[in-house]
Amino acid sequence: MKKLMNGSETMLAESIAGFATAHADIVVVGPANKYLRRRTLTPGKTALVSGGGSGHEPMHVGFIGQGMLDAACPGEVFTSPTPDQMVTAAEAVDTGGGCLFIVKNYEGDVMNFEMAVEMASSPVEMLVIKDDVAIEDATHTTGRRGVAGTLIVEKMLGAAAERHADLAQLLDLGTKVNDVTRTMGVALTSCTVPAAGRPTLVLGEDEMEVGVGIHGEPGRRRAKLGKAQAIAAELVDTILRDLGPRRGSEALLFVNGYGATPLMELYLMVDCASRILRGAGLTISHFLVGSYVTSIDMAGCSITVTLLDEELRGLWDAPVRTAALRWGI
Amino acid sequence: MKKLMNGSETMLAESIAGFATAHADIVVVGPANKYLRRRTLTPGKTALVSGGGSGHEPMHVGFIGQGMLDAACPGEVFTSPTPDQMVTAAEAVDTGGGCLFIVKNYEGDVMNFEMAVEMASSPVEMLVIKDDVAIEDATHTTGRRGVAGTLIVEKMLGAAAERHADLAQLLDLGTKVNDVTRTMGVALTSCTVPAAGRPTLVLGEDEMEVGVGIHGEPGRRRAKLGKAQAIAAELVDTILRDLGPRRGSEALLFVNGYGATPLMELYLMVDCASRILRGAGLTISHFLVGSYVTSIDMAGCSITVTLLDEELRGLWDAPVRTAALRWGI
Repeated sequence: MKKLMNGSETMLAESIAGFATAHADIVVVGPANKYLRRRTLTPGKTALVSGGGSGHEPMHVGFIGQGMLDAACPGEVFTSPTPDQMVTAAEAVDTGGGCLFIVKNYEGDVMNFEMAVEMASSPVEMLVIKDDVAIEDATHTTGRRGVAGTLIVEKMLGAAAERHADLAQLLDLGTKVNDVTRTMGVALTSCTVPAAGRPTLVLGEDEMEVGVGIHGEPGRRRAKLGKAQAIAAELVDTILRDLGPRRGSEALLFVNGYGATPLMELYLMVDCASRILRGAGLTISHFLVGSYVTSIDMAGCSITVTLLDEELRGLWDAPVRTAALRWGI
Repeated sequence: MKKLMNGSETMLAESIAGFATAHADIVVVGPANKYLRRRTLTPGKTALVSGGGSGHEPMHVGFIGQGMLDAACPGEVFTSPTPDQMVTAAEAVDTGGGCLFIVKNYEGDVMNFEMAVEMASSPVEMLVIKDDVAIEDATHTTGRRGVAGTLIVEKMLGAAAERHADLAQLLDLGTKVNDVTRTMGVALTSCTVPAAGRPTLVLGEDEMEVGVGIHGEPGRRRAKLGKAQAIAAELVDTILRDLGPRRGSEALLFVNGYGATPLMELYLMVDCASRILRGAGLTISHFLVGSYVTSIDMAGCSITVTLLDEELRGLWDAPVRTAALRWGI
């Protein structure tokens, strides 16, 4: 294991400290690192709180800020935050409009966020993201996993919350975005959890894991590393079969690196995937390319497609100012 | 070698195609991929053109756009673009204000850009960036190498050019920024050039290369992988000894990943480096954290410090809209 670190037990706290230092204009850290929240809150706005295991940076802390999240709770690496973290975060950012928890579908996260909903003293709802089409029931997951599509949901709900959508409207909108969003990924190498010190997945020199999860969980098949064009075709075809878009549909294409993937490869995948999508009759009006929902130091990528209508297009285009996503401000 | 690719001979062209597809609102590709340029040019503005070997993405193509570059010439991976590319790019973006070439200090690049200056029919000047304090004369370099500080120069000159600075003023300003900017890096793993198929550097399981170049060139020493705090201290101390800032100076801290470095590690390095810089009496008013000047799939990072005054602070804060850097627009 080769990492820039001082010790696995202090790594997360030091990284959060560096993040808060670099983005002090946007975020503040709560007591005992329970949460990070926006420096400036808007009275009466419905608060959006996300969180999950660390190791997926910039998700979720990098999505805190105007036009996106109000707070995020970082768990230990690949470990759910505690209900106490979520309750404390909700109390810190609820300015009277209630609070929506945005949760990726993993048993540990769902259980803890549900407990937090019960413990919360103010109105809290919970939205569970399930965008991964690779497999149905996975390691530690009932139903589909929540992966890179979570970013799309958080961006669009963030824009709607700024426009005074209430808790019920945000829950409906989040369900809508989740329903038109699909993701599938491939790993070329494993990630290594700092405290474990060895790779999560054992992949041969010529192997890839198709449909991998963002914690290095098994996907749908282990295969010989193929050409990018064939990989893109498998990911995009699986997404399209499941999504079933009408010809002429408008889409957002998000090519996401897992943490150790050079941009040159991500843009090559954009080229491959966009040709296939256009061949299927889709118009790709929006792109996002970069390592936003990562698996520590895994090499590989995921492809996410979200179908857009006028409402969702407007929400995506709306101004955002966070550490990781910024435009229009 | 594990990469998302179809073949090493087509990789660059496919990646450029994907980049141009994803950022069609910002860039257009010139004939035969000789250059990429802004979609919209400003008549009379002095044009800024950079370029160099590919493999450092998003540099330089990701820095094309309002408030930064007018064009960039991508060479083959780790290979200088040709003088013909630079001349063609300059002709494509010179709208009457002349053109400044921003060049990283490598013999191949400097030779080819110098040839392009001689061949150009319109006024062209050339600025050579030399920010790497690791070593003086390196492999393929006379004097210091140009590395991550190039981004800082391109951002600040880009802002000045939008404010109608002329060619002579931009050359002076670029020299000023270069003079207050220092960088040093460390590699934990090697990069692998696609066409070569094997690692450039051979690093043992417990080794790091201190002062590495952005092509995997040797640095100042090979050492046992140390703690992040000690690595940050060596990089920052070397920078400060060379830069010699007065106590109370204002600085920008740029922690740059080499392509395979997780953000968690980069933010941990921000924490380490900012403590040291503050201990030395500097005020860090601005931060940039991310993988912007990469070495394909190398793990590790570089630290860049730029001393700011009112002029440079204003140029850094000015609006920018490129594929890789965007704020205020």
